[in-house]
Amino acid sequence: MSGTSQQQQLLADSACRKGVFITLEGGEGAGKSSHLALVREYMEGLGYEVECTREPGGTKLAEQIRSILLTKDDEESLCSTSELLLMYAARAQLVNSKIKPLLEQGKVVISDRFDLSTYAYQGFGRGIDLNSIDSLREVAIGSFRPDLTLLFDVDGEVGMERIRVRKAKDRIEQESLAFFQKVREGFLEGAKRNADIAEIIDANKSFDEVSNAVLAVLQKRFPRN
Amino acid sequence: MSGTSQQQQLLADSACRKGVFITLEGGEGAGKSSHLALVREYMEGLGYEVECTREPGGTKLAEQIRSILLTKDDEESLCSTSELLLMYAARAQLVNSKIKPLLEQGKVVISDRFDLSTYAYQGFGRGIDLNSIDSLREVAIGSFRPDLTLLFDVDGEVGMERIRVRKAKDRIEQESLAFFQKVREGFLEGAKRNADIAEIIDANKSFDEVSNAVLAVLQKRFPRN
Repeated sequence: MSGTSQQQQLLADSACRKGVFITLEGGEGAGKSSHLALVREYMEGLGYEVECTREPGGTKLAEQIRSILLTKDDEESLCSTSELLLMYAARAQLVNSKIKPLLEQGKVVISDRFDLSTYAYQGFGRGIDLNSIDSLREVAIGSFRPDLTLLFDVDGEVGMERIRVRKAKDRIEQESLAFFQKVREGFLEGAKRNADIAEIIDANKSFDEVSNAVLAVLQKRFPRN
Repeated sequence: MSGTSQQQQLLADSACRKGVFITLEGGEGAGKSSHLALVREYMEGLGYEVECTREPGGTKLAEQIRSILLTKDDEESLCSTSELLLMYAARAQLVNSKIKPLLEQGKVVISDRFDLSTYAYQGFGRGIDLNSIDSLREVAIGSFRPDLTLLFDVDGEVGMERIRVRKAKDRIEQESLAFFQKVREGFLEGAKRNADIAEIIDANKSFDEVSNAVLAVLQKRFPRN
């Protein structure tokens, strides 16, 4: 897309948007999901109606795509290219059929994970060509972006230790420390590429300290009158 | 991809390919599926082991994607971008986990529909930007192409009339003649873009005449000793 048409698209996107779209991003054990309620309460306190969602998924059809992504099949493994295409298929569906309509109604939408997770996990973690990710993003959601991304940044070892104490085991838990560190690097690089909307929260600290940092960002970005 | 690296990729693709990949393409009522057995028998007659597949689908995971694509949901409709991404997710999975391994074993793979159908139905029929389709193809399957595409070309009215007499009704049957004609144009344009591998069969003729035309193409491309 040329510079001018991209600018026009950005204008068109913001023109139809009365609500606010906030995403929570970060590696495993960063405490992202635990702070969703805090963000929700803050935005409700400003008088907004708030809807929370998650990725991949968030709509009936996108959840069907999620189940293909997350179900491990013993006979056949999903190739990394197909995984990436499914991720963006779910994202296109969520954005078009849920997030955009809610924003047009003036609501706040908070999503547990969004595009930055693909950049970090698939791009940096699994080493998928970043140009492929950029191409798919362009087709799937164009220039649509959050108004604010809270990146819960946690050191690989701290994150691993936190998930070690969780009871439910999943695929990600078996990944190595090196993988966690590459993913962290991806999140930080993605935040740099979206510096105007991304705020990095130091999630190595205690829960209360992280909560205070989240509130400080919200007060700065969406001040109470 | 630059000219040189594309050439290298094409060489790499053909180097690992000992088998033959044949696709059958065409609109509804073109008689494509009815001629699959004929192509199979001809190739078996040359001494090949032959596997048939279909698109979207053809593997366990790709068939799960197919069911999301084909199931009509009353509450939520699949957006056209998500549909396109799912189509390519299914194709990447089929190519990587089934077609390429079979070709490496020296087998013949015949697919009922492949990439040309996306170009014709989504690109021309539904009017999705052709650049988006090109981007997704590049990510999903790179330069991978059939060795031979048989395009069963049928006039929109003839095709519509043929499917009108079928008992099973589906979504496509309700499309207008104008839609059928746009799809036909897409198939012909796609065949022109792949002139080195595409053979157009006049499918307005009788079944026997079409069969003879198919055999003539096979004898030209893969002569009996």
